[in-house]
Amino acid sequence: MTRLSILIVEKDHDRAQKIVEGIAAAGPHDVTVLTETGGLARRIAEVSPDIVLIEVADPSRDVLEDLALASGPLDRPVAMFVDHSDEHLTRAAIEAGVSAYVVDGLQPERIKPILDAAIARFHMVSKMRAELAATKAALEDRKIIDRAKAILMKSKGIDEEAAYALLRKTAMDRKLRVAEIAGQLVMAAGLLS
Amino acid sequence: MTRLSILIVEKDHDRAQKIVEGIAAAGPHDVTVLTETGGLARRIAEVSPDIVLIEVADPSRDVLEDLALASGPLDRPVAMFVDHSDEHLTRAAIEAGVSAYVVDGLQPERIKPILDAAIARFHMVSKMRAELAATKAALEDRKIIDRAKAILMKSKGIDEEAAYALLRKTAMDRKLRVAEIAGQLVMAAGLLS
Repeated sequence: MTRLSILIVEKDHDRAQKIVEGIAAAGPHDVTVLTETGGLARRIAEVSPDIVLIEVADPSRDVLEDLALASGPLDRPVAMFVDHSDEHLTRAAIEAGVSAYVVDGLQPERIKPILDAAIARFHMVSKMRAELAATKAALEDRKIIDRAKAILMKSKGIDEEAAYALLRKTAMDRKLRVAEIAGQLVMAAGLLS
Repeated sequence: MTRLSILIVEKDHDRAQKIVEGIAAAGPHDVTVLTETGGLARRIAEVSPDIVLIEVADPSRDVLEDLALASGPLDRPVAMFVDHSDEHLTRAAIEAGVSAYVVDGLQPERIKPILDAAIARFHMVSKMRAELAATKAALEDRKIIDRAKAILMKSKGIDEEAAYALLRKTAMDRKLRVAEIAGQLVMAAGLLS
């Protein structure tokens, strides 16, 4: 495991100390401990950790969701440890984006494999999310370019190839993407119509 | 938790018995135990369980990947329990699609929350996977329809709207999707050119 910046959110000082010891046994990492959850999102943004480890005693749905979202689960793996759960709480935490959700498992020797799993899970989900975003963007690009082509074909009486060539040349001249030029054209045509 | 069909893969009879007892304590579920991993994919297809729980003593990368794939991790949640791991094994298992990967956690009382987490994780990832597949299909449809339109516009000297209308009418007449008609046209134009 490479050296990581790990942020621990644990209200209980003694347990925080045990977690820090468990992590130290796993390797040399940079550990920050927060014992308050107030302003969590801001503190996490300041520290910008590689991974967040949150312990929640007596979890409720609202608390789990608030903590998960404040930890930036789209930006980094978040491992959440709770002392008990049920299927609804578990589902809420996982849908809020936590990469590892562990019930009653905060023994120091179990921390390293859970962090490994959280990191692997985060990367897998991030990859899917990036692929989905790229595919959606490609589809949106194609739609807007289609609409722009149709506008040009009609207004200038040119064929599709000529319309695309015109969009492409304009994009190159302006150092923009074809889809951006297409979007501007569609917007302008809407204003002018 | 609704009544589930749970398939357990555990070579050790005593441990299998303990897992069955742990699950029985969590609720009335239908449990099948396999003590051999030979022909796993076929057995799982026969039982068609709601969830698979696999215990692997002394895991290796090959064994983890083979077991994960044989369990059909795209079709159902797979929870894998190992007695030890490292970050490479963890990553291999998660990338092979297991919904829960648990190191040294096969205590009976921990099984239910892990199954809950595996199910929640499976549904989350399945939803993303379905959205990705639908978006990719929409993009591919659009590409093939574009190519078919261009072929019609050129060969018949018609404009884009007319070309699309022609595809659409043919699709309706044949009770096929526009993208299917477009695919057939592109294929045929390739053969004829």
